[in-house]
Amino acid sequence: MSDPRGTISSGDRVLLYLDSRRTWLVQLKEGVESFHTHAGIVDLKKIPGMRYGDVVDTTLNEKVILLRPTVLDYVMKSERRTQIVYPKDFAYISARSGIRSGSHVLECGTGSGALTTYFASLVSPDGYVRTFEAREDFFEIAGKNIEKAGMKDFVRRERANLQEATVEQENYDLVMLDTGDPWTLLPTAHQALKGSGFVFCICPTMNQLENVAFAMEGKFVDVECIEIMFRRMEARVGKTRPSTRMIGHTCYLASGRKVNSL
Amino acid sequence: MSDPRGTISSGDRVLLYLDSRRTWLVQLKEGVESFHTHAGIVDLKKIPGMRYGDVVDTTLNEKVILLRPTVLDYVMKSERRTQIVYPKDFAYISARSGIRSGSHVLECGTGSGALTTYFASLVSPDGYVRTFEAREDFFEIAGKNIEKAGMKDFVRRERANLQEATVEQENYDLVMLDTGDPWTLLPTAHQALKGSGFVFCICPTMNQLENVAFAMEGKFVDVECIEIMFRRMEARVGKTRPSTRMIGHTCYLASGRKVNSL
Amino acid sequence: MSDPRGTISSGDRVLLYLDSRRTWLVQLKEGVESFHTHAGIVDLKKIPGMRYGDVVDTTLNEKVILLRPTVLDYVMKSERRTQIVYPKDFAYISARSGIRSGSHVLECGTGSGALTTYFASLVSPDGYVRTFEAREDFFEIAGKNIEKAGMKDFVRRERANLQEATVEQENYDLVMLDTGDPWTLLPTAHQALKGSGFVFCICPTMNQLENVAFAMEGKFVDVECIEIMFRRMEARVGKTRPSTRMIGHTCYLASGRKVNSL
Amino acid sequence: MSDPRGTISSGDRVLLYLDSRRTWLVQLKEGVESFHTHAGIVDLKKIPGMRYGDVVDTTLNEKVILLRPTVLDYVMKSERRTQIVYPKDFAYISARSGIRSGSHVLECGTGSGALTTYFASLVSPDGYVRTFEAREDFFEIAGKNIEKAGMKDFVRRERANLQEATVEQENYDLVMLDTGDPWTLLPTAHQALKGSGFVFCICPTMNQLENVAFAMEGKFVDVECIEIMFRRMEARVGKTRPSTRMIGHTCYLASGRKVNSL
Repeated sequence: MSDPRGTISSGDRVLLYLDSRRTWLVQLKEGVESFHTHAGIVDLKKIPGMRYGDVVDTTLNEKVILLRPTVLDYVMKSERRTQIVYPKDFAYISARSGIRSGSHVLECGTGSGALTTYFASLVSPDGYVRTFEAREDFFEIAGKNIEKAGMKDFVRRERANLQEATVEQENYDLVMLDTGDPWTLLPTAHQALKGSGFVFCICPTMNQLENVAFAMEGKFVDVECIEIMFRRMEARVGKTRPSTRMIGHTCYLASGRKVNSL
Repeated sequence: MSDPRGTISSGDRVLLYLDSRRTWLVQLKEGVESFHTHAGIVDLKKIPGMRYGDVVDTTLNEKVILLRPTVLDYVMKSERRTQIVYPKDFAYISARSGIRSGSHVLECGTGSGALTTYFASLVSPDGYVRTFEAREDFFEIAGKNIEKAGMKDFVRRERANLQEATVEQENYDLVMLDTGDPWTLLPTAHQALKGSGFVFCICPTMNQLENVAFAMEGKFVDVECIEIMFRRMEARVGKTRPSTRMIGHTCYLASGRKVNSL
Repeated sequence: MSDPRGTISSGDRVLLYLDSRRTWLVQLKEGVESFHTHAGIVDLKKIPGMRYGDVVDTTLNEKVILLRPTVLDYVMKSERRTQIVYPKDFAYISARSGIRSGSHVLECGTGSGALTTYFASLVSPDGYVRTFEAREDFFEIAGKNIEKAGMKDFVRRERANLQEATVEQENYDLVMLDTGDPWTLLPTAHQALKGSGFVFCICPTMNQLENVAFAMEGKFVDVECIEIMFRRMEARVGKTRPSTRMIGHTCYLASGRKVNSL
Repeated sequence: MSDPRGTISSGDRVLLYLDSRRTWLVQLKEGVESFHTHAGIVDLKKIPGMRYGDVVDTTLNEKVILLRPTVLDYVMKSERRTQIVYPKDFAYISARSGIRSGSHVLECGTGSGALTTYFASLVSPDGYVRTFEAREDFFEIAGKNIEKAGMKDFVRRERANLQEATVEQENYDLVMLDTGDPWTLLPTAHQALKGSGFVFCICPTMNQLENVAFAMEGKFVDVECIEIMFRRMEARVGKTRPSTRMIGHTCYLASGRKVNSL
């Protein structure tokens, strides 16, 4: 982890914040001396020695705040983000499943590594995420994204289908299925989970939700099918209101807890 | 943590699961031999040596599943739950603020200790939650709830107003304000936070949201005011639909990241 | 219609309004002299000659307002309301289909007559609603509810399945299907509709929606599948917020406009 | 009204429907011989004598359906639409207030005439809408839009502030306030309404809602503050789901029924 006082060093990553729509994730390193924006140039050489939360002026006298990147910043800035899962969704997955430092997570598929990165940050330093991805391009991208977020040590990646792989039995606290047909992987998930452990399925459509819920019967209990809606508010004195624009749907989430045998 | 194989011992807590509406959190201990439900009696003496995920029969031959309690189970079963904050909400707070093992959280007020317990589970074993509660009755209840959830070692509780207390400066990754007038505590929160750290305010009304957003200006950036809606789905083959009943509102969430000075 | 000045006469119906949760729909008539409520007795004999909007005191000195019943009041107070359709829903149906005085509406099934009553009020005095209901009990109840709302002259009721009936071809502006399997009635609806006329299907489940949308292809255009959510607000000075309780789901609405042949 | 058999004549308006995103409202008249689209040219001369619901081919062999414009089609296609009110909203207003053929509606302000047009279609042929608009540009535009929709005979327009105008007392079934500070017009609305009549206020912000609700106290009962959310569904076989995009907010609606004196 970075310096406890928040002093920024060469090699560190910084989220340059101009306003809520214009933020950039940069790494301070030899040879990269400045960062160009529409609001002027940021002199990166001045930053080492400054602290997170400090302000720098651009060459156009705009103020840029030096924010410490969170795991969400890495996730939302990751390359070729394929997942349709949003923070509202994976936040809920982690809260319900109770994963924390030391937990073991099994994931299929990795996609661009967004969920992988998020879960890795929660289970570190003592736990890990084992993740499967069959597509070469996603496998490559996910590797870069996970490394950039500093989560490489807590992730075991494999380029394979989970269905064809051999996974540890009764080892995982959470199995995360983000594929087109998650119900076909439920037997594998059941074997891999510790008793009482959670399986979570990402379901963009209600048909997937229906199939998953049906396939869970008899093997999982406390089955929950939900949808989370997220609405931004514009809070201004005398003019407070919800935002006009909103994401209408990302996915449904189906989850259950393993019964050893019923 | 419990046995890795999931074997249950005397002294352990178990969530007895009959169906989605009937679950009970019990502790196995000397002298408590059985648990009475409408669906028959559960013989608790049989449970030690069994594993989480196993099934026991009641005296009326109903099946009860032995689930390992998650932090959410403790939170949702805690005594005198005062908070209007729901899992959808505190899940999002932890995801956005990025707190994890080792993080420092400051909270005001403790209430019944629900959020305290949840955050403690995430920052353990290396971090801690320092929490303030002025009311004697809540202070008492919270102590019991936090202890029951096994989070006592990661929480520093004080019976006092945050406003009158002396708190470490530039020490916290997250300051959580759950009081009637959170905007009055923003200066204290600002001092206590590390640069770039997060403040989160629980706002049941839009008037609180408006006041908080206004008071954050110039001291916090990346200010976000949101509302999260949670809808259960009934996923049954050929009959899938959202549930008829729904919670219409819990609270708005306002958050921002500390700027050292602007 | 009642007296234009709003003077109430014997025989008129009045909505007695005590507060938002306690309202009663009564008819003033010979022999019914008083109305008993928890908040005291209303002397009905005093009401003829008073005007809608006036206030009467109960014997316990509570104030009761004399409101003129709207069609929604009749609908929401109707006996054995079976429909899961709410004002938010049938309001939208009428707006999108553009029905108004003079329009012809075909409905299946009548249920308790709620939608029938509402549509009849809009198409009166020159249009009509023809409605089918196979079940004897609903047929009876609907007759009473429609008569009570004063809409009898604008409704042609039949106790039969629409599928077995002979209906006028190319006669209707709107065909309203509120049955378990509305897609089976689409051919009949298509024949009954004028060119460019609207069919609307009430679909509690996503599976019905899917079936209906598929069956509309090639026969209807401008197909729209939607869901309307309705949230009450508690607007109080300094404490404005959405209500805690909310209906999570009533039904989806599928609609389309008839193409003569494609 | 047009021919009951739906035969289209010269002078009639037609909604040309290519697909859900590409529709055009055209009037058939001398000298306008064709309509150009990206999907080819529509020969308008062929249309008179055809019927609503019929299909014409463009010069690029795309099919265009001849739909009969509804009042919503006129409203959604009106020029310089200023209102933030959507069909979901004004549908509900008409349903709750119960306006129908013969009703009297008072509106302030007219804006581009969308609500005016909609209400006029419902109260015609025996009722009318009297509407006020202070701004010259809106007054002009609204005149054109209302005429185009064929509602001119049922609307009495004035270019003035309602506050400075003299309006009939106890004459209206519905007073519709769509201004920035609707609470200032409540006394005028109260005088203009029949006893038990409805006032409706369009409130984009919660602050307006709060002010209106407070100002209604003692003069209106059955006060209701609500918000309506509208979500499109994508219903496809095996892939049914809510749409990704959604309007997050249009306005709150506050309404109440006049008490003559309390």
